[in-house]
Amino acid sequence: MTDAPVTGAPVDLRSDTVALPSPGMRAAMAEAELGDDMFGEDPTVRALEERLCGLFGFSGALFAPSGVMANQIGLRLLVGPGEELVCDAEAHILAHEDGAPALHGGIQTRTLTSESGLIDPRALAAFVRRGNSYTVGTRAVAVEQTHTRSGGNVHPLETLRGIRAVADAAGIAVHLDGARIWNAHAATGVPLAEFGAPVADTLSVCLSKGLGAPVGSVLLCDGELLGQARKIRHRLGGGMRQAGVLAAAGLYALEHNLARIGDDHSNAALLADGLREAGCAVSAPETNIVLARTPAAEAVVEQASRHGVRVTSPAPGLLRLVTHLDVDKAGCEQAVRVLAKAIHGQSAG
Amino acid sequence: MTDAPVTGAPVDLRSDTVALPSPGMRAAMAEAELGDDMFGEDPTVRALEERLCGLFGFSGALFAPSGVMANQIGLRLLVGPGEELVCDAEAHILAHEDGAPALHGGIQTRTLTSESGLIDPRALAAFVRRGNSYTVGTRAVAVEQTHTRSGGNVHPLETLRGIRAVADAAGIAVHLDGARIWNAHAATGVPLAEFGAPVADTLSVCLSKGLGAPVGSVLLCDGELLGQARKIRHRLGGGMRQAGVLAAAGLYALEHNLARIGDDHSNAALLADGLREAGCAVSAPETNIVLARTPAAEAVVEQASRHGVRVTSPAPGLLRLVTHLDVDKAGCEQAVRVLAKAIHGQSAG
Amino acid sequence: MTDAPVTGAPVDLRSDTVALPSPGMRAAMAEAELGDDMFGEDPTVRALEERLCGLFGFSGALFAPSGVMANQIGLRLLVGPGEELVCDAEAHILAHEDGAPALHGGIQTRTLTSESGLIDPRALAAFVRRGNSYTVGTRAVAVEQTHTRSGGNVHPLETLRGIRAVADAAGIAVHLDGARIWNAHAATGVPLAEFGAPVADTLSVCLSKGLGAPVGSVLLCDGELLGQARKIRHRLGGGMRQAGVLAAAGLYALEHNLARIGDDHSNAALLADGLREAGCAVSAPETNIVLARTPAAEAVVEQASRHGVRVTSPAPGLLRLVTHLDVDKAGCEQAVRVLAKAIHGQSAG
Amino acid sequence: MTDAPVTGAPVDLRSDTVALPSPGMRAAMAEAELGDDMFGEDPTVRALEERLCGLFGFSGALFAPSGVMANQIGLRLLVGPGEELVCDAEAHILAHEDGAPALHGGIQTRTLTSESGLIDPRALAAFVRRGNSYTVGTRAVAVEQTHTRSGGNVHPLETLRGIRAVADAAGIAVHLDGARIWNAHAATGVPLAEFGAPVADTLSVCLSKGLGAPVGSVLLCDGELLGQARKIRHRLGGGMRQAGVLAAAGLYALEHNLARIGDDHSNAALLADGLREAGCAVSAPETNIVLARTPAAEAVVEQASRHGVRVTSPAPGLLRLVTHLDVDKAGCEQAVRVLAKAIHGQSAG
Repeated sequence: MTDAPVTGAPVDLRSDTVALPSPGMRAAMAEAELGDDMFGEDPTVRALEERLCGLFGFSGALFAPSGVMANQIGLRLLVGPGEELVCDAEAHILAHEDGAPALHGGIQTRTLTSESGLIDPRALAAFVRRGNSYTVGTRAVAVEQTHTRSGGNVHPLETLRGIRAVADAAGIAVHLDGARIWNAHAATGVPLAEFGAPVADTLSVCLSKGLGAPVGSVLLCDGELLGQARKIRHRLGGGMRQAGVLAAAGLYALEHNLARIGDDHSNAALLADGLREAGCAVSAPETNIVLARTPAAEAVVEQASRHGVRVTSPAPGLLRLVTHLDVDKAGCEQAVRVLAKAIHGQSAG
Repeated sequence: MTDAPVTGAPVDLRSDTVALPSPGMRAAMAEAELGDDMFGEDPTVRALEERLCGLFGFSGALFAPSGVMANQIGLRLLVGPGEELVCDAEAHILAHEDGAPALHGGIQTRTLTSESGLIDPRALAAFVRRGNSYTVGTRAVAVEQTHTRSGGNVHPLETLRGIRAVADAAGIAVHLDGARIWNAHAATGVPLAEFGAPVADTLSVCLSKGLGAPVGSVLLCDGELLGQARKIRHRLGGGMRQAGVLAAAGLYALEHNLARIGDDHSNAALLADGLREAGCAVSAPETNIVLARTPAAEAVVEQASRHGVRVTSPAPGLLRLVTHLDVDKAGCEQAVRVLAKAIHGQSAG
Repeated sequence: MTDAPVTGAPVDLRSDTVALPSPGMRAAMAEAELGDDMFGEDPTVRALEERLCGLFGFSGALFAPSGVMANQIGLRLLVGPGEELVCDAEAHILAHEDGAPALHGGIQTRTLTSESGLIDPRALAAFVRRGNSYTVGTRAVAVEQTHTRSGGNVHPLETLRGIRAVADAAGIAVHLDGARIWNAHAATGVPLAEFGAPVADTLSVCLSKGLGAPVGSVLLCDGELLGQARKIRHRLGGGMRQAGVLAAAGLYALEHNLARIGDDHSNAALLADGLREAGCAVSAPETNIVLARTPAAEAVVEQASRHGVRVTSPAPGLLRLVTHLDVDKAGCEQAVRVLAKAIHGQSAG
Repeated sequence: MTDAPVTGAPVDLRSDTVALPSPGMRAAMAEAELGDDMFGEDPTVRALEERLCGLFGFSGALFAPSGVMANQIGLRLLVGPGEELVCDAEAHILAHEDGAPALHGGIQTRTLTSESGLIDPRALAAFVRRGNSYTVGTRAVAVEQTHTRSGGNVHPLETLRGIRAVADAAGIAVHLDGARIWNAHAATGVPLAEFGAPVADTLSVCLSKGLGAPVGSVLLCDGELLGQARKIRHRLGGGMRQAGVLAAAGLYALEHNLARIGDDHSNAALLADGLREAGCAVSAPETNIVLARTPAAEAVVEQASRHGVRVTSPAPGLLRLVTHLDVDKAGCEQAVRVLAKAIHGQSAG
């Protein structure tokens, strides 16, 4: 085998957001019954919102064009301007949402640090604080399920219950950033309903990562907050018209793509094993994200790309691979071959 | 004829946002070539953005999930936190965007008032002010084409050129809220290119009103501002993944629905004539929005709704009707019959 | 008389803020009983706050380091983030407070325009709007007494009562920026109590303009809002410790300097007459601010300054003079002489 | 000795902000040369600003009415809206400034946690992050000297130099909240100049804690940032007129009260020893703040207050005492007697 680029379809492991809608999903979108969702009249959006309410045990749901927006709506329902939110120091809401909590919501953030990215209920209990007329108190905690930057780690149900108990005792609310809650469900077998209303006041779920829909997230909350949630969404520019065309993909995904998410985890394990054999330091992935340490990570990314395998290097010496429904086992095996060669080439060089 | 509700499809004149995608548009969406637009890799989004750059003479374009967001991005590119924007007192950005300029952008607004909703260049010249270290100066003016709340009035090209000249002389920028710029184009015959870059620094155009796409607006600007524009969009939660499914509808609409917008204007004229005959005070509509004064407007709205004709009453004594591609001439004639009957019923009662 | 600079003390008419504390005022400050006002324990601050509550009929008062801060606290008590405030287009809160309402408070402003700077109740009634879930409604109106940029014009009591009535009918609140309310009182003879709680929900008054204290303003409001007002003040950085040293000056000023403000008005009239004779277009000043039109205003400012008379030119062709307790009749006569000479010199040149 | 309240002057150890100006300081204030500081014309304010520039090696200084405002100006000079600031999780700027960084500045905060409240340069190096177009990077770190909530702990000079080195390497700025920098100076003997410009980009110092002035803080920065700093101050409502009356107290305090701050530390040590003997868990105070653990802290606070000794309990089981120039050795001995009795009474009860 020469160093010439391989032929065949590229294997794109940069993110689970790159998955494309399948023909079936496209057909569902094309046939969706539509209306003006700004008037609350899109039947497909409503159906999706109701479906998710049912799955997670909430009484209110709101479709949004992105996970960033669903998170921002949820946070602002719970934390007012000038009030304090506690979260993990590597939370998506702080790393990947461009300062939106502070800039748009006036929300002060105070962060806990942990190796795993998971929030430990005891650490949380020691960290939240009551305010008075002179000092700022904590109003809510945000938890990420699964935790992106740690490599898809899962908050076990008992941890979420512990966080809920700490929050209740402290009189604060819980926002769950559940962009990859489907992966947590698949990895643990815990029913979605347990991961929803019993442990969180607001929950954002994403339709375009593991589920493979093109666009959309949903914010779940108490139905009495929906009016306020709609106002926040509108002000952010997230009010859409015939959004049912997108919601139809979400409904399709829940029907067809949820059950198969475990495959992504098997494929991630395959990638982790392969990279470990290739000399990387790799933890066993809990879900669909693989973080592997190798010295010349950026060069590996570049060489692999020339051979049809796309991964990223989020930090020096670190490779990141994410499995999803557009990458099968064969693709992952191919990725391992290409990456191993690139890693050896770099270490040999 | 009894007072029983009429049969047949309802005639929905509440807004031009209620138009549903046609089978052809749905097919175009279902077949769209897609990618992850957060990585700038969605070819259909790119094609739409390039198409609009070409139409309006801009070097940068950014797809957004709503007109509110496209406007907000444009304004924030031009006016920094704590700086001043001048606009009409009845501008959409102040009435219908929930305080977003101030709350998210920290933008101070100072408003001109006019009967027509149009901005007079001479009034503008007298109104803008230079700041110094003690006082706030004006940084930009926002203009609305067509002007929604005045009933779809059109800023003539020479007015826009006059505003541009005043802005240049004062060293301020121009944002054009062109949600219905297509209507202005159809009503005046002025080429789109004249309504774009020559008269505005940023321009938002909407795909889901007169053009009939389900979701989406586009912000046009100098290409050098695109990085910043993307950051603002992401922070607002407007970064989407396979957004090409929506952009495909926009491209289809530009191809198929732009040329027919004049029909909406004819239909609006028909409605205006009919309502005037029914005793309302109605100005001749310049485009596709009809404002008609009749004492018991809210009762008329309700009665007409029971007979399959939906209109709104934005203020006491005022009816508002908006034509669009899902309402044909026959539908408008039907609407006039139902409304006239309702108006007479109220004035008789 | 040569063109050499005159001897003697300069006559500073740039602003009524330049007045210096008198020996008596300084003695009062030096002897003030003090405490930590952040704990609510400064007896002199409390005495000043109570005195002003009594004068204007309010139940709550809060000392602040500036008029800007007193205004900002008042506005934010009445108008929430993303809500709308109506005011005059030339209001101090928009021209001289650096965008604070929008940037810090998220307050959207919509402005009325008038020749006089005064708000006409009928124009206000037509301008305020009710919001709904789709549109922004007006929450409050801000009125300026006297109106700075118009040249110190006074809202007559019946106008303020009219504004109050319109506000009540519309369900909105009234903030009164009373930085120069003392001048309005002196000019009209209307008791301060009539200009306070009966016509406004919040009122800011300044101790350092006509009254001649070195630093300080007070925000008057319903006593139930004081906790919130303190929080806003603290967040802005306006919580001070032994602030009684400043409050003592305010109490002294109310005792000694309020009754003499009419002198400033006589002096302003003298200046206006003199400038009219010197060829300027000058309206008769209602209070202590004189605006005079003369072509080469900036050159006049500069020449007068060399001869010990300081005035400003806020816009091309415009002179502005403000009388206060550090300028007596002789000083104003001297100012007229110097300015007249400068004006003739310019027009002769 | 009965349980009747003791006679004599109360010993107020609640905060070092309660110290009252001495007769000498009051005389200096009464004689201060004044001008309008909004025009930059107050000679005493200028003298104070220049004096502090000299002491700490900065080229720009700005007087502010509070430490909160001086901090907020400093932070906003360094960190833009939507950008990230790193600080300690128990920082004054997060606990005692009411959410101002987020609400007014749009500043996102990410926090490090430590036992001591001090920032460890190595922990900082691991914590700051570079951003890219997708992720938020750190723009500045805020350090508190001394650290209030930890009990007045001092960042040693080598720690500050280490933080400076980490910041330089990461391309981020350093804000030093030096409200009690005088105490750090007195405790370590490190010259003020070493604690200033060499280790910080912006520095806030307080005149009303250890130094005993009634009101005021000063923000030190690069002189080129002064224009922007003045704008931020004005917008916050911190622009004052004849502020020299306050600045005079600051100048007096630097002359007369700086050298004696070591006495406060001896007195704090005396209090700590006494409370330890009384059975509390007490660390040896590094400066003028004593934190002592005793079970029934709130009851002790109340009983001591009845006997003329005022302390606070910032958290259950915790007493806090702060020494300052209005409490001498005898007062502290008296405080120990009263507190010991109260503690024994509670433990006996």
